[in-house]
Amino acid sequence: MTACFRRIGIIGKPGDPRVCSTVGTLAEHLMARGLAVATDQLTRETLASDECSNRSLDKLGNDNDLLIVVGGDGTLLGAARTMAEADVPLLGINLGRLGFHVDVSPETMLDTIDSVLAGEYDEERRFLLDARIGPEPDLASPSLAFNDVVLHKWNTARMVEFETYIDRQFVHTQRSDGLIISTPTGSTAYALSGGGPLLHPDLNALLLVPICPHTLSNRPIVVNGDSRVEVRLCGFDAELARISCDGQKAQALKLDDRVFVSKYPHPVRLLHPKGHDHYKILRAKLGWGGHPSMQDTSLKE
Amino acid sequence: MTACFRRIGIIGKPGDPRVCSTVGTLAEHLMARGLAVATDQLTRETLASDECSNRSLDKLGNDNDLLIVVGGDGTLLGAARTMAEADVPLLGINLGRLGFHVDVSPETMLDTIDSVLAGEYDEERRFLLDARIGPEPDLASPSLAFNDVVLHKWNTARMVEFETYIDRQFVHTQRSDGLIISTPTGSTAYALSGGGPLLHPDLNALLLVPICPHTLSNRPIVVNGDSRVEVRLCGFDAELARISCDGQKAQALKLDDRVFVSKYPHPVRLLHPKGHDHYKILRAKLGWGGHPSMQDTSLKE
Amino acid sequence: MTACFRRIGIIGKPGDPRVCSTVGTLAEHLMARGLAVATDQLTRETLASDECSNRSLDKLGNDNDLLIVVGGDGTLLGAARTMAEADVPLLGINLGRLGFHVDVSPETMLDTIDSVLAGEYDEERRFLLDARIGPEPDLASPSLAFNDVVLHKWNTARMVEFETYIDRQFVHTQRSDGLIISTPTGSTAYALSGGGPLLHPDLNALLLVPICPHTLSNRPIVVNGDSRVEVRLCGFDAELARISCDGQKAQALKLDDRVFVSKYPHPVRLLHPKGHDHYKILRAKLGWGGHPSMQDTSLKE
Amino acid sequence: MTACFRRIGIIGKPGDPRVCSTVGTLAEHLMARGLAVATDQLTRETLASDECSNRSLDKLGNDNDLLIVVGGDGTLLGAARTMAEADVPLLGINLGRLGFHVDVSPETMLDTIDSVLAGEYDEERRFLLDARIGPEPDLASPSLAFNDVVLHKWNTARMVEFETYIDRQFVHTQRSDGLIISTPTGSTAYALSGGGPLLHPDLNALLLVPICPHTLSNRPIVVNGDSRVEVRLCGFDAELARISCDGQKAQALKLDDRVFVSKYPHPVRLLHPKGHDHYKILRAKLGWGGHPSMQDTSLKE
Repeated sequence: MTACFRRIGIIGKPGDPRVCSTVGTLAEHLMARGLAVATDQLTRETLASDECSNRSLDKLGNDNDLLIVVGGDGTLLGAARTMAEADVPLLGINLGRLGFHVDVSPETMLDTIDSVLAGEYDEERRFLLDARIGPEPDLASPSLAFNDVVLHKWNTARMVEFETYIDRQFVHTQRSDGLIISTPTGSTAYALSGGGPLLHPDLNALLLVPICPHTLSNRPIVVNGDSRVEVRLCGFDAELARISCDGQKAQALKLDDRVFVSKYPHPVRLLHPKGHDHYKILRAKLGWGGHPSMQDTSLKE
Repeated sequence: MTACFRRIGIIGKPGDPRVCSTVGTLAEHLMARGLAVATDQLTRETLASDECSNRSLDKLGNDNDLLIVVGGDGTLLGAARTMAEADVPLLGINLGRLGFHVDVSPETMLDTIDSVLAGEYDEERRFLLDARIGPEPDLASPSLAFNDVVLHKWNTARMVEFETYIDRQFVHTQRSDGLIISTPTGSTAYALSGGGPLLHPDLNALLLVPICPHTLSNRPIVVNGDSRVEVRLCGFDAELARISCDGQKAQALKLDDRVFVSKYPHPVRLLHPKGHDHYKILRAKLGWGGHPSMQDTSLKE
Repeated sequence: MTACFRRIGIIGKPGDPRVCSTVGTLAEHLMARGLAVATDQLTRETLASDECSNRSLDKLGNDNDLLIVVGGDGTLLGAARTMAEADVPLLGINLGRLGFHVDVSPETMLDTIDSVLAGEYDEERRFLLDARIGPEPDLASPSLAFNDVVLHKWNTARMVEFETYIDRQFVHTQRSDGLIISTPTGSTAYALSGGGPLLHPDLNALLLVPICPHTLSNRPIVVNGDSRVEVRLCGFDAELARISCDGQKAQALKLDDRVFVSKYPHPVRLLHPKGHDHYKILRAKLGWGGHPSMQDTSLKE
Repeated sequence: MTACFRRIGIIGKPGDPRVCSTVGTLAEHLMARGLAVATDQLTRETLASDECSNRSLDKLGNDNDLLIVVGGDGTLLGAARTMAEADVPLLGINLGRLGFHVDVSPETMLDTIDSVLAGEYDEERRFLLDARIGPEPDLASPSLAFNDVVLHKWNTARMVEFETYIDRQFVHTQRSDGLIISTPTGSTAYALSGGGPLLHPDLNALLLVPICPHTLSNRPIVVNGDSRVEVRLCGFDAELARISCDGQKAQALKLDDRVFVSKYPHPVRLLHPKGHDHYKILRAKLGWGGHPSMQDTSLKE
């Protein structure tokens, strides 16, 4: 079953001058094919032409059949969070360097776009996290994360102490620099720096990675993706920790606040060129060995 | 829905003298309740009484409604592999030290058994791995593993080189001391020593942990539990690696052999006392911090 | 060559009520032996008796032949930093739980003290770090650290980027949550949580441990103890990072500030009961296996 | 003080056809300058010309003023072990890929050689390990290692159990896949794959890295380079472990054998082009970030 993409939204990485010509070329190509093209205000200002219509970022998702994101992985993460409720697929074009998510290069983008418009693409669904901070989850408004929700020690050189619960079961009390609660998508991001494993993106799982834990047996934990994670700071530390989603501006906690993290109900739809190969991207990004005949990197003799 | 346990099999840890009195007490208690009790030959020889009937180990699963395993985690792993096709639940009694799987102590076992016979227990299902060595999976006979299938370098001080495929997709070529392919159950065993994460036992996932990989970005990988993993040695190393299941006797590979690992279709049924708490066992076995009021272990001041 | 200890200073952990009786017992015992005993003001206030003389904390080192520290490892770290220039030996008494440094228990302290006064003790010398923040090391005033000097990301959910130089040689640019520059003493503290190795305390070495580095090959580094380490933040991050010494109050950096870390010229003198065994303390604190006959802890079967 | 190099030995990587032309070019260049050139038998056979004289490998060190090694790091490790007693400096030429030790490329080798002959070079001294297997160190003949002495589990899928002593002090009993005892030089080799830190080559230290230890707190340990390390297998495992030096053929242990490892008294002398920069080589081999303006590799956005 092929989708029919008639209205195309384009979002560029804010403030990056390289976006300009890529978005311009893209918009012209799409309009020449008779498609309706819309951009957000910021992206539009970078364009010479004013033929594209102009939508606020949050409406761009609802009003279009396909969103093309031009930038890096971070730009795509941001678009995915903003468009989370709209059931619109995203296609990522990188600005010169392969990303984990923005896997179409500017050089080949017009051919790829034409194939996608012809219904030739692979679609995958990834899930977001819903993070809520408050005494009860129902009273708090959700923040969304595509990679991770992170509890950070804040304004202190000391560790924080907190309790973790999974589906209301007590897991442990931990002293550490914080806790990364990651999606499979986020397992290649901060969680990897923290010592976590790589999770295949289609896995229905949450990953909890302690940051520099005091107790050496506090290892990364992988649990069912439908689990509800709750973190309770040991009270006196409430002002010494904050919560961030995908590394964005960190939220403070009030005295009796807890952190509630669970899967967000609306998945993100990512489009890739036909034949998308997750492991190929991992090999390229992580410097893994390819087939022996092509192999060149090795650490020791 | 309560099961009706009328015929009870008992398996003791072979060669451990502590088994004797525990199995004896257990058998007497069960027979006094009018239940049929059978043991394997080796366990039976340790008993003073000869009232128990005697079955070969592989029949013990088919002929009974419940199997009680007395020993350590290793004894239970062995029983689970042997009884894999029989749809019989297992209950583990440890010989004095809490195991990850044998979580009933001899002191409380009679009360626990009575509760279980009255239908009060928690049942969980865990999966085994099916490992096959040969040029094609269909031609090879399966070996079973409850914890892990491990590729080890063998009889060499050098690393082995191999390719990994998941669902026929090439993952990478790796030089290392080997590869641990683990169930969630096995994530607390060898995989943990190799740097892997802890997987919740109900997760439908396989864990691949490289052993001392040459390339530092070769991190542990978690994939869907229904994946089919294939490992191909780079040919000249074929005699320098072996495969073991749960640390048992290692099998050699012939020149064109590959290793095929996937989920075994019959799950293991484990019974626990009502209120079984996975994280409580992890806290006890791994020395994790409990609730702050009970906490005592910490590394630094 | 035995030292002659006539004037004894006592420092208690501030604000800990358990200190009171231990210090009291200690002071009485020493005065009964005809020795002069002095405490700092805070410790003195906890005592019933007013026979001890009273010194400001920084004078306590210069005016005494021996300093007894009652508290935890943190109390001893603080005393060592404060007394750094005084050539006075320190003896640590813990408040009930063995520390890495405070290795005399209150139960045996009077016997130990008597032995020490009789010249029976082991003395070891450990070095402190001298940390300076400013455009040039010569213009900045030093802060001292016994465990570690730490560069932390601060008030941000993002990583910091910085360059490291050792003896003016460029090492690398790193993106991470920060950098731990540790003495051998500090290798059992925060550096261990960050993934660092254990350094024997008599090793003349500095340990650099990256905190959650973005690049997986940014491993801990061990260099000569006489090295001069310099860290330069990539400018725009100057307000997003701070420096702490032994986890104490963190110092901000101004725009052109650099961080200079090197060995402090005056060593700390630590006294231990005769037969002090560094590895025995590690075994006790880290849960390492003892001689097989005494061994009890193991993770797996 | 400049050395005077009149007699030059050349050693090529055995069995590598690329060695031939490099050694030939090198030999011609040196002979054209009127210097005496000798090669080992194997290397000589690859040469068209027969003007070089021919020495057994072990005499090549004593009879020459300088040894040029053409190959990879492994070739240089082997030459260093063989020439250990001869006080002859080594210069390493790689066959196309930068090594940690063979840091002169074939393209620039003639210029580098001329500079070295003119006395322009940096010399560094590195130490070897002396490993002895037997009931007592004095009765055993030494094997030498430049990188590491490794205790491996052997012919078994199970861990080995052993005790470690440093300077006759008991460290711990460990269950693991083995133990790597490494020089600072070896810290970039197998020890790095095992999770060890990087030691600066001029550090007088030994590094002990446990391989997949059962107890998670069994971390890498760094001790004084003059320490004497002793490893005792728990008896019944004596046939299940072997010892290798630099990954060479592994030696078995007899029932009461112990492993004794200490610094070998004769250092290795390595010559480098003037301005040799250890960290530059680490950056190149490990993919570390360079100065920000030159930086290109990063894992995440």
